[in-house]
Amino acid sequence: MGSLHKRLEEYAGSDYYPYHMPGHKRRLFGEALAPVAAWDITEIDGFDNLHDAKGILHRLQLRAAEVYGAEESFFLVNGSTSGILSAVSAALPKRGKLLMVRGSHKSVYHAAYLRSLEITYLLPGIHPEFGCMLAATAAQVEQALAEDADIGAVLIVSPTYEGLTAETAEIAKSVHRRGIPLIVDEAHGAHLGFHEGWQSNASRLGADLVIQSLHKTLPSLTQTAILHVNGGLIDRRKLKRFLEIYQSSSPSYIFMAGMEEAIEIAAEGAERLFGDFEKNWKEMLEILGGCKALRFLQEKNMDKGKLVIMDGTGSLSGKQLYDKLLNQYHLQLEMAAGRYALAMFTIGDTKEGYERLTKALLVIDSELERGHRSLDDGELHGRQGQWTCPEQRYPLYEAWDKETERVPLEKAVGRVAGGFIVPYPPDIPIVVPGEIITEEICHYLQECVKDGLTVQGMEEQNCQMYVEIIK
Amino acid sequence: MGSLHKRLEEYAGSDYYPYHMPGHKRRLFGEALAPVAAWDITEIDGFDNLHDAKGILHRLQLRAAEVYGAEESFFLVNGSTSGILSAVSAALPKRGKLLMVRGSHKSVYHAAYLRSLEITYLLPGIHPEFGCMLAATAAQVEQALAEDADIGAVLIVSPTYEGLTAETAEIAKSVHRRGIPLIVDEAHGAHLGFHEGWQSNASRLGADLVIQSLHKTLPSLTQTAILHVNGGLIDRRKLKRFLEIYQSSSPSYIFMAGMEEAIEIAAEGAERLFGDFEKNWKEMLEILGGCKALRFLQEKNMDKGKLVIMDGTGSLSGKQLYDKLLNQYHLQLEMAAGRYALAMFTIGDTKEGYERLTKALLVIDSELERGHRSLDDGELHGRQGQWTCPEQRYPLYEAWDKETERVPLEKAVGRVAGGFIVPYPPDIPIVVPGEIITEEICHYLQECVKDGLTVQGMEEQNCQMYVEIIK
Repeated sequence: MGSLHKRLEEYAGSDYYPYHMPGHKRRLFGEALAPVAAWDITEIDGFDNLHDAKGILHRLQLRAAEVYGAEESFFLVNGSTSGILSAVSAALPKRGKLLMVRGSHKSVYHAAYLRSLEITYLLPGIHPEFGCMLAATAAQVEQALAEDADIGAVLIVSPTYEGLTAETAEIAKSVHRRGIPLIVDEAHGAHLGFHEGWQSNASRLGADLVIQSLHKTLPSLTQTAILHVNGGLIDRRKLKRFLEIYQSSSPSYIFMAGMEEAIEIAAEGAERLFGDFEKNWKEMLEILGGCKALRFLQEKNMDKGKLVIMDGTGSLSGKQLYDKLLNQYHLQLEMAAGRYALAMFTIGDTKEGYERLTKALLVIDSELERGHRSLDDGELHGRQGQWTCPEQRYPLYEAWDKETERVPLEKAVGRVAGGFIVPYPPDIPIVVPGEIITEEICHYLQECVKDGLTVQGMEEQNCQMYVEIIK
Repeated sequence: MGSLHKRLEEYAGSDYYPYHMPGHKRRLFGEALAPVAAWDITEIDGFDNLHDAKGILHRLQLRAAEVYGAEESFFLVNGSTSGILSAVSAALPKRGKLLMVRGSHKSVYHAAYLRSLEITYLLPGIHPEFGCMLAATAAQVEQALAEDADIGAVLIVSPTYEGLTAETAEIAKSVHRRGIPLIVDEAHGAHLGFHEGWQSNASRLGADLVIQSLHKTLPSLTQTAILHVNGGLIDRRKLKRFLEIYQSSSPSYIFMAGMEEAIEIAAEGAERLFGDFEKNWKEMLEILGGCKALRFLQEKNMDKGKLVIMDGTGSLSGKQLYDKLLNQYHLQLEMAAGRYALAMFTIGDTKEGYERLTKALLVIDSELERGHRSLDDGELHGRQGQWTCPEQRYPLYEAWDKETERVPLEKAVGRVAGGFIVPYPPDIPIVVPGEIITEEICHYLQECVKDGLTVQGMEEQNCQMYVEIIK
């Protein structure tokens, strides 16, 4: 029967002539497309239809479910974004109530807006040293559920962007005791469960809906992801409906062939690939353990692959560290936050990748140590993440449709936000429409700008930052 | 400054090491991805962010707007689907009223569901011979607008799947006289306006929002599209909001580099490419003009590139013609409908493509002529497209959320549909949730099944077709 890629290749070499889309007819394309366009097809005979999968795409999805230990799996060609939108939409009726981690990706908020959901926030807390968001605990979820009997579904993030994993198994039990579904945004965890001794994935830990970005931690193309569904709490037909709504009716076969291969590479090569990964990762951490000035996030519940680096002397902000590595060493990190910078490792890294970063960090560490200043918590305070939840004047689904005006950031204090304010990466909103902008948030956003971080939802005009507030 | 593709290639050849997504790190991938993964990046420094475009992606979109004569253009990585959802969502408030062509793509219905829109249908009529849907006329739109002052936006399809173009310029004037926006689903018209003497595109003809599938008629990858916006009737911020909601926050740079190149190929090579296209197309039509049994859709308002083929003797259904070409000649057509089959031509076709189809059709024509029967309208009657609009019991946004049950198709007559029933291609619903299933529709769907067409929303069980109806 063969893989999708092999079948596409065979087909491309056959004498079948395409009187159908796509318009390049597998031959006319620029340099950019040339290498792959030959097997960029559409839903022709024998190649199934992702939105009504019964043939080869159905088989690929069955195989993915088997690999991840899920009951049913769905390829996503519109990223985890489409998986989150579909999962939230299917888990709750319109105007239902969602318990969600405050530090969720913007797509969770978008789903709540589209479906007019009421939101209750889980606040997992902030890491005292690094200032990043912590992962949700079972006790937090249990308490939130005890306080509000109207909650119809729960959404947690695990691992977080920084690699902290939630108490998913316990949380699933707690959520299921109330007979409602648990959605896990596992966008950063498509690699989980492939290696002995590593954490399992959320499907195996009892979650009802799990969304994984295949491109983030596995060798798959950007924009590819997968959604898993388990148990009887989710109406599968409704889920399929939303997957169809939020995704192109012309899904890319290049994406799908790539997803198949990425999963096979991880599954078949698990022992060697993840074994090497673990070895290199441990060696690097051991060497970096000798650093005097630099600190690295290390927690019991931490996933492998996220190196969260902070200057413990307080000399360099996360962005300065990030820029230094980029400009002086040509090492492109994943992101910079207030206090730290984040480097990502996967099974795709080379020995060189580990060595170059290790060497650079050792040099930076000794530079910092020479100019040593002791850590002053006050000095770094403004750079702590803002994972609080300001007073909510209107629900999101009402607030985002109200008329707005633009005012300078300082003048927005005490006013109601009319739009999202979202630093990216990681695309997690700091301010949600309908919330009152506090002095503290204003200060935090000013620090973000000062640090040179990119923030969506603020516009510069004459050296002044403007934000949208409700009229 | 260079093209995106060149910059990606240069970057791939540089010494910058990726400590960021995607997980393949530009090197670990299966055979399928190998040729392109080297420049599959994410929003790293210097490569802009599609959802907040200010750098290279902003420039590419400016260039696209210039080529298409639009005020502003947006690349779509989630197909025309995401463009339609965004356009409809931005053009109307929640619970607004949309005047739309009945034969619209399912994504228009999905947008109406998500935004709880009231729908009024335009019924452009049916081609008496081929049974396909006609394109909307200005008189039809004018009349519908005169009958209902609450309509807040109008959506038409042009060209239709079969290549018929609407009176877009006149319709735009009529719609604008009421101060409301016109959305044109120009998914099949990304090639319009490139060649002298050919039709212009909807942006130049006065539409406010225009959605084009770049992959359908230009040499771009499947799932790529573009949205154009013109004039002052659309709130651009709101439009951007919805583009962000309905599309991945990790858009594919391979898609974007491909879109850039596809537009450049069409723009720069217009004279030669479209000149050759026109020449080959005309020659083919001239030869096929000699056919005795086969008929080809030819109308004044017909676009080039869609060859709609019908057996005028009534011996072969559209699907039989389609299968004959596929199995005996290895010619893969775009689709089959009741009475006709459809072959698509673009600037990507070779001389061989024209010749092989022409030859095959001449052979089939002479076979049909030998076994000649005179056309019996009655015989073909059931195979005429169903572009009517049954009685609506509930609005779509209510109906699709109601509890349903599955009953055999025949038993559904007189009952209210609980789900969509959609033949694909072309992914245009025949039955919409909330509508009463008539005897006529039941008969039509039975014919579709008999003809071997693929219909989503019907499930076979023990040789019996089941559909969903509201309890």
